[in-house]
Amino acid sequence: MRQSQLFTKTQKEAPSDEEAKNAQLLIRAGYLHKEMAGVYQLLPLGLRVVEKIKQIVREEMNAIDSQEMLATAMQSKEVWERTDRWDDEKVEVWFKSELKAGGEIGFGWSHEEPLANMMKNHIASYKDLPKMIYQFQNKLRNELRAKSGIMRGREFLMKDAYSFADTEEQHEKMYADQQQAYKNVYDRVGIGEDTYMTFAAGGAFTQFSHEFQTVCEAGEDITYICKEKGIAINEEVLEEANLEELGVVRDELVETKTAEVGNIFNFGRHKAEDAGLFYKNSEGERTPVWMGSYGIGITRVMGVVVEKKADEKGLVWPESIAPFKVHLVALNTDDEEISDWAEGVYASLQKQGVEVLFDDRNARPGEKFAESDLLGIPYRVVVSKKGKEAGTFEVVTRATGEVRNLTEEELYADFS
Amino acid sequence: MRQSQLFTKTQKEAPSDEEAKNAQLLIRAGYLHKEMAGVYQLLPLGLRVVEKIKQIVREEMNAIDSQEMLATAMQSKEVWERTDRWDDEKVEVWFKSELKAGGEIGFGWSHEEPLANMMKNHIASYKDLPKMIYQFQNKLRNELRAKSGIMRGREFLMKDAYSFADTEEQHEKMYADQQQAYKNVYDRVGIGEDTYMTFAAGGAFTQFSHEFQTVCEAGEDITYICKEKGIAINEEVLEEANLEELGVVRDELVETKTAEVGNIFNFGRHKAEDAGLFYKNSEGERTPVWMGSYGIGITRVMGVVVEKKADEKGLVWPESIAPFKVHLVALNTDDEEISDWAEGVYASLQKQGVEVLFDDRNARPGEKFAESDLLGIPYRVVVSKKGKEAGTFEVVTRATGEVRNLTEEELYADFS
Repeated sequence: MRQSQLFTKTQKEAPSDEEAKNAQLLIRAGYLHKEMAGVYQLLPLGLRVVEKIKQIVREEMNAIDSQEMLATAMQSKEVWERTDRWDDEKVEVWFKSELKAGGEIGFGWSHEEPLANMMKNHIASYKDLPKMIYQFQNKLRNELRAKSGIMRGREFLMKDAYSFADTEEQHEKMYADQQQAYKNVYDRVGIGEDTYMTFAAGGAFTQFSHEFQTVCEAGEDITYICKEKGIAINEEVLEEANLEELGVVRDELVETKTAEVGNIFNFGRHKAEDAGLFYKNSEGERTPVWMGSYGIGITRVMGVVVEKKADEKGLVWPESIAPFKVHLVALNTDDEEISDWAEGVYASLQKQGVEVLFDDRNARPGEKFAESDLLGIPYRVVVSKKGKEAGTFEVVTRATGEVRNLTEEELYADFS
Repeated sequence: MRQSQLFTKTQKEAPSDEEAKNAQLLIRAGYLHKEMAGVYQLLPLGLRVVEKIKQIVREEMNAIDSQEMLATAMQSKEVWERTDRWDDEKVEVWFKSELKAGGEIGFGWSHEEPLANMMKNHIASYKDLPKMIYQFQNKLRNELRAKSGIMRGREFLMKDAYSFADTEEQHEKMYADQQQAYKNVYDRVGIGEDTYMTFAAGGAFTQFSHEFQTVCEAGEDITYICKEKGIAINEEVLEEANLEELGVVRDELVETKTAEVGNIFNFGRHKAEDAGLFYKNSEGERTPVWMGSYGIGITRVMGVVVEKKADEKGLVWPESIAPFKVHLVALNTDDEEISDWAEGVYASLQKQGVEVLFDDRNARPGEKFAESDLLGIPYRVVVSKKGKEAGTFEVVTRATGEVRNLTEEELYADFS
């Protein structure tokens, strides 16, 4: 894409009411527009990053036979009353409204109940199980505070998956498949090394639930981590008996600020029992379905990546989720020979299938480089008069600052 | 995809409270789940159709240099107060709610105001114009009645685009580009022949606005159409002076039931003036931007296609938006030779890049065919013992009922 055509502009300053580093940078770089606290429009560059993260998650979900669908924001009061989660005393984050036609509706802060309810039409017998479904759905949550940018939105994009099983064995297998899929996702988006599957309080049905926590200064959680053993524990289960069971002693654990980038719940059979999702087992008995639920905050993951990778110059994207792979920056564009050369390189890289943002604008080099650093695209390729004379391009790796001078041939080979 | 794995099942009956043919069929075929009146979950087959329609619209928008972004459902009261459209007396379809942190918010029934507001950060000078943006956004509308299935949802997916121009000439060009893009979209989704650009009331700034109306018995609108001249007129502008201007007489116009599948508005400079979107023109003067807005109801288009194409047996999809191109139906699957043969054909078609739903289930032929007709996939390929003996497949075109017997070689050639 040509930067001269891109409608967004970078900004010197973030809005004065924006406290979070992730949102400040993303707004300044033109990835986001702040609608209100905790609510951000995705501008073209931001949407590209979100779609990249979604595609990684989609591939990992499809690989474990999870089927994509899409539920609705509007939710029925009756469905949530059945499991006693309609009341604002029970769920604090509801947004609700009144139908003109009469009656109350809620806006989806979660989708466990509506999807369990929907599955009643599709699960009758053990022959219909196991099944797994997922969606990318906007969640709307009436958070009292929203000061962490896209790490805690009032409106945010989540991937939520749900598993439905006949036997405990099937159930455990899908739970384990999701755990592995989550690890793959964090590896692929570039935060795998610092992300820990964390033991948290399990509720009435299981000893533990599992959160995925990423080491992050801007995180809102505290996790106790033993890096050597790869064990992480939420404060709420930091008890002697649990530590013993997990094979770790208190002194090995380091109190660490973290951000929750995913969580998975083992509902056993209780959620289906409450929601009324029953099937006939192989003996013909009416039985509640084993259920699990698995969430990843897509926009939160984006925020965490920004917080962890950005430097004093701006954003730094891992290649896997960058809006473009290459930022082709043309200098001396008033020289027709240079500008023709740059056009040729742009065409060739695109032909090779490389995603390129082409800075074809007439501006000062210093301005262009500062903006390029702010945007955080992994590789900057500079086309200049000086380079033309030497027959090379300056290629700068954003994450490391490494500078290489490549010939045209070397350049294409490098990005092929 | 294997039908034995697909989690949705077809249903004999639609919910008793569902009046619309489109929703009845789509629910029975497992494309949709009804959350409440006017609110439908997209199940995997339904999501595939929606994604196909989106991709067609996306290609047509990108072709006219419109840039994709994604705004939010949550909207700020202040932004809508500025143009005097926050009041429920002014806009009847608002859903509103209260923030826990204090203050009211609205849920997006339209996005003109928030996007005009966002553009203030990106349009400063005539050099930043012209620009066009679009999004696929869920709209939430508090409709008093919602009896037309996905043709009038309380929650529905819309493509909305907005153009921003410096000069009237740029503005008219983008308006014309969008008109052409809309025609291309209706052609590609299979309703082009029956869709008319219709003259409707233009409001304070232009003589006419333009709706796209599709001839449809289930439509909620009445349009006056002269098929020969390709002219269509909304009742509200059915006046002698207008007819004269458009070169048609009243007797040539046939009163026709239609569904509105798109509408485009020419705001002139007034919307930007109200919203406070100004730029510096080439003379350095502060000037309101020329704006247009362009909407297509994605899920409504899907509903209209269903209403127009479906027959007594079920859904009938045009190839361009079908969830799969081929429904491969294996009979006699208890015969290992037949089932192996079917598996081979499934693998070969997929390898050829053909999208196939493979009915690999063990069920009676009559049941399979009835379900195949209900699903409406364009081509049914039957693998059977009888066919094996003759060395052929029965290929049925869903729309016409045409039956052909093709050899394996002919089959692959036909779908290549």
